[in-house]
Amino acid sequence: PFSFSTSAMAKSKFEYVRQFETQDPCLPNTWIVIRLDGRNFHRFSTDHGFTKPNDERALHLMTRAAETVMNDFRDIVISYGQSDEFSFVLKKSTMLYSRRASKLMTHIVSQFSSSYVFHWAQHFPDQPLQYPPGFDGRVILYPSNKNLRDYLSWRQADCHINNLYNTCFWALVQQGGMTNTQAEERIRHTFSADKNEILFSEFGINYNNEPEMYKKGTVLVWKKVEETVTRTCRTAEDPVERPREVTKLRKKVVPLHTDIIGDVFWEEHPDILEEECF
Amino acid sequence: PFSFSTSAMAKSKFEYVRQFETQDPCLPNTWIVIRLDGRNFHRFSTDHGFTKPNDERALHLMTRAAETVMNDFRDIVISYGQSDEFSFVLKKSTMLYSRRASKLMTHIVSQFSSSYVFHWAQHFPDQPLQYPPGFDGRVILYPSNKNLRDYLSWRQADCHINNLYNTCFWALVQQGGMTNTQAEERIRHTFSADKNEILFSEFGINYNNEPEMYKKGTVLVWKKVEETVTRTCRTAEDPVERPREVTKLRKKVVPLHTDIIGDVFWEEHPDILEEECF
Amino acid sequence: PFSFSTSAMAKSKFEYVRQFETQDPCLPNTWIVIRLDGRNFHRFSTDHGFTKPNDERALHLMTRAAETVMNDFRDIVISYGQSDEFSFVLKKSTMLYSRRASKLMTHIVSQFSSSYVFHWAQHFPDQPLQYPPGFDGRVILYPSNKNLRDYLSWRQADCHINNLYNTCFWALVQQGGMTNTQAEERIRHTFSADKNEILFSEFGINYNNEPEMYKKGTVLVWKKVEETVTRTCRTAEDPVERPREVTKLRKKVVPLHTDIIGDVFWEEHPDILEEECF
Amino acid sequence: PFSFSTSAMAKSKFEYVRQFETQDPCLPNTWIVIRLDGRNFHRFSTDHGFTKPNDERALHLMTRAAETVMNDFRDIVISYGQSDEFSFVLKKSTMLYSRRASKLMTHIVSQFSSSYVFHWAQHFPDQPLQYPPGFDGRVILYPSNKNLRDYLSWRQADCHINNLYNTCFWALVQQGGMTNTQAEERIRHTFSADKNEILFSEFGINYNNEPEMYKKGTVLVWKKVEETVTRTCRTAEDPVERPREVTKLRKKVVPLHTDIIGDVFWEEHPDILEEECF
Repeated sequence: PFSFSTSAMAKSKFEYVRQFETQDPCLPNTWIVIRLDGRNFHRFSTDHGFTKPNDERALHLMTRAAETVMNDFRDIVISYGQSDEFSFVLKKSTMLYSRRASKLMTHIVSQFSSSYVFHWAQHFPDQPLQYPPGFDGRVILYPSNKNLRDYLSWRQADCHINNLYNTCFWALVQQGGMTNTQAEERIRHTFSADKNEILFSEFGINYNNEPEMYKKGTVLVWKKVEETVTRTCRTAEDPVERPREVTKLRKKVVPLHTDIIGDVFWEEHPDILEEECF
Repeated sequence: PFSFSTSAMAKSKFEYVRQFETQDPCLPNTWIVIRLDGRNFHRFSTDHGFTKPNDERALHLMTRAAETVMNDFRDIVISYGQSDEFSFVLKKSTMLYSRRASKLMTHIVSQFSSSYVFHWAQHFPDQPLQYPPGFDGRVILYPSNKNLRDYLSWRQADCHINNLYNTCFWALVQQGGMTNTQAEERIRHTFSADKNEILFSEFGINYNNEPEMYKKGTVLVWKKVEETVTRTCRTAEDPVERPREVTKLRKKVVPLHTDIIGDVFWEEHPDILEEECF
Repeated sequence: PFSFSTSAMAKSKFEYVRQFETQDPCLPNTWIVIRLDGRNFHRFSTDHGFTKPNDERALHLMTRAAETVMNDFRDIVISYGQSDEFSFVLKKSTMLYSRRASKLMTHIVSQFSSSYVFHWAQHFPDQPLQYPPGFDGRVILYPSNKNLRDYLSWRQADCHINNLYNTCFWALVQQGGMTNTQAEERIRHTFSADKNEILFSEFGINYNNEPEMYKKGTVLVWKKVEETVTRTCRTAEDPVERPREVTKLRKKVVPLHTDIIGDVFWEEHPDILEEECF
Repeated sequence: PFSFSTSAMAKSKFEYVRQFETQDPCLPNTWIVIRLDGRNFHRFSTDHGFTKPNDERALHLMTRAAETVMNDFRDIVISYGQSDEFSFVLKKSTMLYSRRASKLMTHIVSQFSSSYVFHWAQHFPDQPLQYPPGFDGRVILYPSNKNLRDYLSWRQADCHINNLYNTCFWALVQQGGMTNTQAEERIRHTFSADKNEILFSEFGINYNNEPEMYKKGTVLVWKKVEETVTRTCRTAEDPVERPREVTKLRKKVVPLHTDIIGDVFWEEHPDILEEECF
């Protein structure tokens, strides 16, 4: 009853379509940055009752998803997140997926997205997820360390500017009783100093004392930690195999809420940039 | 207590880094295919007890995630999935995200990934998800209708070849008591006809009678369906506004398990290819 | 006296820099158009005393250079030139230089440029070339026959519009005694019909009677021609080897000054578009 | 007699084809190298009686064409040529043609090609050019100074290896009376030291004393030179306008035949690499 002998032939007849696939390798010896952004997160945050201007649960969930990505892609040397965006920096010399841009960005965006949903319930125990969220991603290449630092500074300066704006805006709305439109009008043409002044004089808020996570965003770096594990082994003194406590070094992702615009951070973490492959 | 006046300036000082971003528009008047593949799904399927050679729950979950993608991106005219892969075809004239390849592929992969996790529990009620799965994606352009059909034929021929192999392999292992290695040895150099013969004479399986979803994969197309909804309105006969049952046409994603290599399918769905923008 | 043994080693130490080269293949099954344009040709034409609005010698030289290109790249199925630009169309299925865009455009631009200088003296016997001219090039891909025809129509419509403008402008200057600025003012806001009217009523010029090369530009196509050559051979009738006149078919580049916007040209030259590889 | 009023409309109807053109900007802050190579120069050199292993006239003509290119593109900071190839290095910060790869490579290849023909007669007074030569070009990006130096070192090491081989090969043929095949056999598996020994012991040639241009190729750099010109002007001492000799600085292309693999050259020309835009 069988007439399948032509199938492998059929497949090979169609296989020419593979020639239409393209390679898109990233230039060697260049920092690869992959930034992802939430899609329609304004609506998503409303639908899920995010507190304004910052929802701690949502930010921690973003960080949790980013940690999953870093643990999967050990060539990421630093990540930076704020609001509904996260940037991942692959080391200059990475050969992950032969540096193919499509592979890198889709894998990272996919892993981030599925992790975000996977860990949702843990961070939002009282708020069921209504529908699966989406993120988009892009690849950007930076040839020099200075370019890379300027990129990260750009994102952190953006975090600060938006957070100051949002803190002021929501104080006017939530505590000042303004409508959204009134609040917007009020601060549209103000400078940073003006917004600080409004917060301080009208609402008694010293912006400097706001949580660092809100003002600085989240930096993820690797830290070597000592870990005590139980292994069955011998020692120099005791030739019998038995379970023993052993100390070993392990790389672990650590979140920081610190300034990365100035030099201090980079002097304290010299290993991030120092790699010199060529 | 405020010293933030330099921040906006700082941001603009760093903003030059945006010049390093590139555009990657897809050639106009060309079919855009986005294919995603499960990452390490061999291990993932083992970790989650997928039945072999096909797990109906897993295939339905893939289809469910793909439907979510199609409902989000209405310019997808047809999708095709098998095993842990899915291909989405955007119409030639789509201007979605200005046809930017990065945006298109990351959005689709992201939406698929988060939907896969979101709908997991519904399809695997007795099997908790252990960890978030990953998918990768790629963009491929096809200039002609023939190229596009050959691409889809290639995937469906691949589905058939793999499924016949797997059906035979797992019969030898599960019913024939062979080890994986023995089963592999047995069928390594056989043709399709040989595998059909093994299935029939040794296990009484007529491959033709295997489920169409396993043999053909899953095709998703749009179907116009009539929907009865209640609307408060007037009619020609009755000028008073009152709730009435109204019939309207709606596009709905429909899964098919049918041959797309031959001409019949395309003759029955002329609208998929007929679009002629230029 | 020799210390060179390290050189081959040195070379291999540096050879990693080849990894920075990229491939840039053109999408298969797509028309490849390469258009080149004269660089600073306004100045070049003044420096070399080109007659205005059209210099027959210069146009013939452009055509001569384009013919050289076509004879070198037999996969060019049609070329179109006007003013200081020329477009070359490579057949959809060409595998020349593995369809690498850089190779294709640089070779064609290089061959055109060196030919332009090489043949200069023949077309400008009384006007020495003052300095080497430059051309730039670009690659454009067109997926469908309609797109390709529209591209060529665009260039020919451009030729017509510019030529009508220039013919009118230079009549006003050369015969009407206007300054450049006055002539420009006069025709800036006119339609085609107005320019025709000016030419006819003020200068007795019927634009329709202007040379076709000026109005339509130059189309280069292949024509099979019979050629009589002398070969030393036998025939069925005469078994002795001796020199004989033999007729053979040869492809030859032929310049036409004809409309390529309408259907007539394409119906008369069905072979240009009919190739159907996929 | 006029029916052209539809032409401008026609043009705009076709103008959509411009959307198919792509941008191809080079990554900012990255060295842009454009290398061109002679096409079929083996045959070209035979057809034009080049002396072997090196033809001084041909090398000088290559240098002359490269100088023309540099004088046209002042953002080229260094060039390197050998045999039938030349590499041009554009400074990291160049914004020439908005860093568009196609524009840069086609302009440079075009200018080089037309200059090669333009200056031919001057360098080959007794050898007419038989046909226009062709060159191809490519663009390569290098992020770091080390990568760039390694690229140039790679080309110079290649020059040395080829020249030693060719010098030895042609000595065996021209002075040793071997056929090409015999000479090839003789040196195929030898090291540099062996070839030096053959040259010295069999032909009395000390390779070290061969011309530097043959051994090292040609490096083109900018040199600031004082130039005395006559200008009509006043001075502080003499308020009357009269013609005076004035000294001014001018950048001039200078050819060198020197080692660029070691550090000495780069220490003596610190300005080539020192530019630090970001």
